[in-house]
Amino acid sequence: MTTDVPSISLNARAAVLVDKLKSARAEFKVGVSAGELGETLIDAGAKQRGSVAAGLLIAEICMGGLGTVEIAASSDTPRWPWTLMVRSSNPVTACLASQYAGWRLSGGEGKQAYFALASGPGRALARKEKLFEELAYQDHAESATLVLEANGPPPPGIVQKVAQDCGITPDRLSFIYTPTQSLAGAVQIVARVLEVALHKAHELHFPLDRIVEGMGAAPLSPPHPDMITAMGRTNDAIIYAGRTHLFVTGAAADARALAEKLPSTTSRDYGEPFAQVFKRFKGDFYAIDPMLFSPAQVSVTAIESGQTFHSGHIDLKLLDASFT
Amino acid sequence: MTTDVPSISLNARAAVLVDKLKSARAEFKVGVSAGELGETLIDAGAKQRGSVAAGLLIAEICMGGLGTVEIAASSDTPRWPWTLMVRSSNPVTACLASQYAGWRLSGGEGKQAYFALASGPGRALARKEKLFEELAYQDHAESATLVLEANGPPPPGIVQKVAQDCGITPDRLSFIYTPTQSLAGAVQIVARVLEVALHKAHELHFPLDRIVEGMGAAPLSPPHPDMITAMGRTNDAIIYAGRTHLFVTGAAADARALAEKLPSTTSRDYGEPFAQVFKRFKGDFYAIDPMLFSPAQVSVTAIESGQTFHSGHIDLKLLDASFT
Amino acid sequence: MTTDVPSISLNARAAVLVDKLKSARAEFKVGVSAGELGETLIDAGAKQRGSVAAGLLIAEICMGGLGTVEIAASSDTPRWPWTLMVRSSNPVTACLASQYAGWRLSGGEGKQAYFALASGPGRALARKEKLFEELAYQDHAESATLVLEANGPPPPGIVQKVAQDCGITPDRLSFIYTPTQSLAGAVQIVARVLEVALHKAHELHFPLDRIVEGMGAAPLSPPHPDMITAMGRTNDAIIYAGRTHLFVTGAAADARALAEKLPSTTSRDYGEPFAQVFKRFKGDFYAIDPMLFSPAQVSVTAIESGQTFHSGHIDLKLLDASFT
Repeated sequence: MTTDVPSISLNARAAVLVDKLKSARAEFKVGVSAGELGETLIDAGAKQRGSVAAGLLIAEICMGGLGTVEIAASSDTPRWPWTLMVRSSNPVTACLASQYAGWRLSGGEGKQAYFALASGPGRALARKEKLFEELAYQDHAESATLVLEANGPPPPGIVQKVAQDCGITPDRLSFIYTPTQSLAGAVQIVARVLEVALHKAHELHFPLDRIVEGMGAAPLSPPHPDMITAMGRTNDAIIYAGRTHLFVTGAAADARALAEKLPSTTSRDYGEPFAQVFKRFKGDFYAIDPMLFSPAQVSVTAIESGQTFHSGHIDLKLLDASFT
Repeated sequence: MTTDVPSISLNARAAVLVDKLKSARAEFKVGVSAGELGETLIDAGAKQRGSVAAGLLIAEICMGGLGTVEIAASSDTPRWPWTLMVRSSNPVTACLASQYAGWRLSGGEGKQAYFALASGPGRALARKEKLFEELAYQDHAESATLVLEANGPPPPGIVQKVAQDCGITPDRLSFIYTPTQSLAGAVQIVARVLEVALHKAHELHFPLDRIVEGMGAAPLSPPHPDMITAMGRTNDAIIYAGRTHLFVTGAAADARALAEKLPSTTSRDYGEPFAQVFKRFKGDFYAIDPMLFSPAQVSVTAIESGQTFHSGHIDLKLLDASFT
Repeated sequence: MTTDVPSISLNARAAVLVDKLKSARAEFKVGVSAGELGETLIDAGAKQRGSVAAGLLIAEICMGGLGTVEIAASSDTPRWPWTLMVRSSNPVTACLASQYAGWRLSGGEGKQAYFALASGPGRALARKEKLFEELAYQDHAESATLVLEANGPPPPGIVQKVAQDCGITPDRLSFIYTPTQSLAGAVQIVARVLEVALHKAHELHFPLDRIVEGMGAAPLSPPHPDMITAMGRTNDAIIYAGRTHLFVTGAAADARALAEKLPSTTSRDYGEPFAQVFKRFKGDFYAIDPMLFSPAQVSVTAIESGQTFHSGHIDLKLLDASFT
């Protein structure tokens, strides 16, 4: 159980950033419209161009305004220097209660079928996922925001269901949709370099309330028009060139064990661009080793004993193979 | 024709930043006064010291508030680590309609003669330059700001002419003047690392509306009291150590051709500090190969096909030869 | 005598940042309470966890809001990439009149004894230190803020004395206390990489009014529960991996002499982790060579002649020996 931010409203914080995105829509190159049920729809890379600037802001919206996402030039990946730097002093809440794309939204049939993974603070209002059994965080906001990796807006049936699950009316809901193939999509996915480390730590049964601080970096992947290739590149940015540093309480031995298991290098499926792994498993996402989804390089500091453990490494050849 | 930000007012955005510069004039170490015709005059490095902080803000004013300019330590240029990082999701408008120092202002005679290259959003209000025939961007602001690489304020004759060309009264005009030899001057010129790439792309006849996103980095050049040496250093920061990444639409072959031609390395006059080139041509700016004015290293991503093309390289020896 | 920012109120600027820290106390993981005399007490790492985010804000509070402190990934120290970047265009005022931990506060006896080094803008209001004889800066604020490297709040006797020295009532005083062992403590101490260069320049009798601009960087040290080890690591971050660039007026020869003497490498006690030096001198701080407290690597640019002098170097082995 994590209790690190009892009185913070992720959705209220995100709402401020959503307003910024809407009011500067021309600059961010996003489209803003109202849906059938009065919900706000923000197109950040489907019919509208979107932008890196929009992606950075959307990444912070995904974290419920409880983390920072910046871009800077890094010498660690010389051919792909533009690097996303992500930081949160409340990493469990920002990443797992908000940023993790854990809410599966689906509805309609045949040509009308719609499926998307939702991330963002609306998840913490609905609390529909099993993961929330282990997160003490509660939000009581009167509005909600979700970010969808999708090419279009959700149909009314899904909007209605999300509103109901969040306990608000649809006109208090904002959906930001951004395709993986777009610039904004690439930014907001690669900005998950810290979140994937948190999620894998959870899979490894590391107690979440012992993770008190986190930071990460990964190179911005160049967009690709093919969905699988684009997805592969965003994953590879993290798997082959992401680095994360976690600060944890408790025994140094636990921190060491976490550091050793956390990097992608420990995965059975490590070693080729993600799109190839995906094709090898015939597109069956769930056949891929879940331990692959993690940063290439990890440091874990046990703050109560002062020891830091390092593991994993960046692989520039695999990064090039993916990005080129 | 670029149409990327139809409803943005560069001058209105810049005005907010100019107010910030004025209200914190002590911190920024700039002087603020009113000119004969009521115009605002901001001295950022002539009689006042100016500062790096002022330079960063002035660089964002030059871009009409439509880009970010930050300073960070980079390992790419170990002896000169402090690096300007420039980014815009509206690069054509920010850089060519605003930041490019393309408006030649001159007036007076003999000792009273005044000449300066003006940059900044006031250019987009006046639209006096041929370049604007190819830029769809229009501004309808009621105030205007220009940045001058100059040692003093413009004389009344020029102020009157600029006001007329901008369609406003002189009291709605702000002039920021900053000598090339000053800290603020060095910052705001090196921050043109993205703009010079845009401008050269235009010279190479790459369609401007196909450049959708851009970022760049170049080391801050140390000031020098001699005008020619100072100018040489600011140019060399870009020519020998600048890197730029452009994201473009259209055919991959076009992106490849652009990447190959864009770096300074392709220029006939590449290979010695700019001040020496300048002296070799006896100070005749227009005799120098215009292809020299571009970043050392370039990446161009064709977002519709997903391919990225790299070209050029940083030259630390030439950078040292210039900065030392 | 430095006269670089005559009309700036360090305490008024800091007050804005203190309000931000208080209003987002849950996010920053700090505690806020009122002391016996009405003073504001902010616990940033003692009974409350504190955070890196709090440390960054406290570092800017220490500088009286007259500098920026950011964190980014640097390739210069590959195992410890998260690096604090500090910058001020008013370095003497920000660092020496405010950030330097030069005000020794002590009171009580036996178990009630309290001792702490105070830094922050309150020092400039009280002006109790000899150093202020050489600083022209004056503040006339109606509130004051001090930052204490301490495990608990100051006792009423000290609060009363500080209020009196500052010429305000205790309810206008804010104390932020942050132990060296905490994350916030580590951040705000390592963020002194520029300040220690300024302080050593002063010890070397370089005229302060000739230092017009400064920037620095040093890796964030991992916290350690032992006070001496924690202190050692924060010092080593600067001594073995800090870099600073100063821009000065006056003769190039003076800049060269300053650059040559400024790095820690010139110290008699350079060469082992600080905690070992401290133990070797049996905990007698004043027996340690004061010239040790300085960045590993220094550049000084003489802006009136355009020359830059480099000296010193990062030592990754010593950094590892300290941080591991």
